Amino acid sequence: MTLRLPVYDDVVAASKTLDVVAYRTPVLTSQTINARLDAQVFFKCENFQRIGAFKFRGGYNAVAKLSAAQRKAGVVAFSSGNHAQAIALACQLLDVTATIVMPHDAPAAKKAATLGYGARVVSYDRHTEDREEIARTLVQEQGLTLIPPFDHPDVIAGQGTAVKELLEEVGGLDALFIPLGGGGLLSGSLLAAHAISPDCAVYGVEPQAGNDGQQSFRKGKVVRIAPPDSIADGALTMGLGKLTFPIIKQHARDILTVSDPQLIQAMQFFAERMKMVVEPTGCLGAAAVFNEVVPVKGKRVGVLLSGGNVDLSAYAGFLRTA
Amino acid sequence: MTLRLPVYDDVVAASKTLDVVAYRTPVLTSQTINARLDAQVFFKCENFQRIGAFKFRGGYNAVAKLSAAQRKAGVVAFSSGNHAQAIALACQLLDVTATIVMPHDAPAAKKAATLGYGARVVSYDRHTEDREEIARTLVQEQGLTLIPPFDHPDVIAGQGTAVKELLEEVGGLDALFIPLGGGGLLSGSLLAAHAISPDCAVYGVEPQAGNDGQQSFRKGKVVRIAPPDSIADGALTMGLGKLTFPIIKQHARDILTVSDPQLIQAMQFFAERMKMVVEPTGCLGAAAVFNEVVPVKGKRVGVLLSGGNVDLSAYAGFLRTA
Repeated sequence: MTLRLPVYDDVVAASKTLDVVAYRTPVLTSQTINARLDAQVFFKCENFQRIGAFKFRGGYNAVAKLSAAQRKAGVVAFSSGNHAQAIALACQLLDVTATIVMPHDAPAAKKAATLGYGARVVSYDRHTEDREEIARTLVQEQGLTLIPPFDHPDVIAGQGTAVKELLEEVGGLDALFIPLGGGGLLSGSLLAAHAISPDCAVYGVEPQAGNDGQQSFRKGKVVRIAPPDSIADGALTMGLGKLTFPIIKQHARDILTVSDPQLIQAMQFFAERMKMVVEPTGCLGAAAVFNEVVPVKGKRVGVLLSGGNVDLSAYAGFLRTA
Repeated sequence: MTLRLPVYDDVVAASKTLDVVAYRTPVLTSQTINARLDAQVFFKCENFQRIGAFKFRGGYNAVAKLSAAQRKAGVVAFSSGNHAQAIALACQLLDVTATIVMPHDAPAAKKAATLGYGARVVSYDRHTEDREEIARTLVQEQGLTLIPPFDHPDVIAGQGTAVKELLEEVGGLDALFIPLGGGGLLSGSLLAAHAISPDCAVYGVEPQAGNDGQQSFRKGKVVRIAPPDSIADGALTMGLGKLTFPIIKQHARDILTVSDPQLIQAMQFFAERMKMVVEPTGCLGAAAVFNEVVPVKGKRVGVLLSGGNVDLSAYAGFLRTA
């Protein structure tokens, strides 16, 4: 099956689908940050979204667009965490049976939440088993519809609604920093930014250890890497998608990287000064801005905080690191 | 000097004074909590207030009401933390010199923030020295005006504005749970609730170890206790005030207590499910509701989260406690 590239109209349609079910998350600012950077920074807080992450937007939009027959047969998704919860909750709300293929070492909080939404969880070992293979078997044997975590037009369109809301609320921006894993959030954000604030420079930000996006962007073709090692557990994908990469290639200004210690510093800042829990992956864009990986002085800057789902014991460890 | 008891009109006036300077903090809800308690719970999030706590309201209102001569001479305050920052920031905004008398073992983050607002800090040992004595000397020798942390009509009126906002936003409530230390927040809240939602049962909540408020309420007179030991460092006062107690006695439904482990559980819930940092004292009202110290089933319930200022290393320890 060939999937078509989504366009901005799909983001607008997703916005309507999500209107009553997703939260319109707050946009927060910090005088400390604005003064330190001599810039105006707007944080779009998807850590306050349902299931604690932006993924609810794309997941719900994708399930909502299924046919009656597809809904009846049920849905399968593979995910390290937030996409799993997104599909589980979307299915609960839309009365569809969800099966989630999840690594056995996924954060306990994410697994518990997924089960709490009434989904069936199938575990696998991410070092020895192939989750796509497992999911494919479920599709063939049980007739389930696979909803991939990022490389799907309805998922991408749904993810784009967060930046649409941000730009409609604060107006045009000079630059926008978006966490990058498989590129669902970044490509959706690019569609929205290109349509609403065409002069805005949009950057994807990924962990240094997993810079497949940066390599791909600079070489002009998808570069795949071995499973990377970073605390940004939502950005450990090995390569961009067939749909996400063309959109990123066309519209992104650049792909940046930050280190794990920079993510930890950002997490500490959010806890100490803004009283918010942001997960490591959620801090990717913020860490790039805080460390001025590209200059932001004098600019109006948007930062997408993608989620807040982190095991409390791991989070406590991050807060304690000097 | 005899100070008059504040009334609701003072809260209304304080609201106008604070209109452009204090944040109108968000009111958040949790479907998890509503389902668990079979109630509708509204969290007024003063952890997102300027300086990270409601104290900014009362502090700013009090400094704003000083005469030109008093402002020129400067202000002194004694505080374990949040009141200090409140006065420091209020003075910075109103161009007044602030001197803060602070225990030498106050949380480092609170001390640093106070200095950051340009205040002068005078340290003392809270086991051997009397902060009121130190402040009094500064008043006599340097002509400063003392702004006490809770027992002052302008402070009480300012603190009442948070509950005024809450009730105006969500409508009448059946019950309201307010952290209780010296009673500034509770008495101000009582003035607002009595005027706007007169049938609302308002409860003060204090740490079990420091239940002077409960003892006082039940005996009908101020009972003073030795310095209590609790993680709720903003509620370690030894007795209610000459102004706060009469208001509490007249309007409060009861004074409740919660344990430190209950505060830790609440902190963990806020971090894990609502992605918010709430300091131990800030969790007093929430812990009473979560543990159904009084029944809330079927009710519309307000909970004031008073602040989010907690040393990250201490906070990390709380998140790790099983």
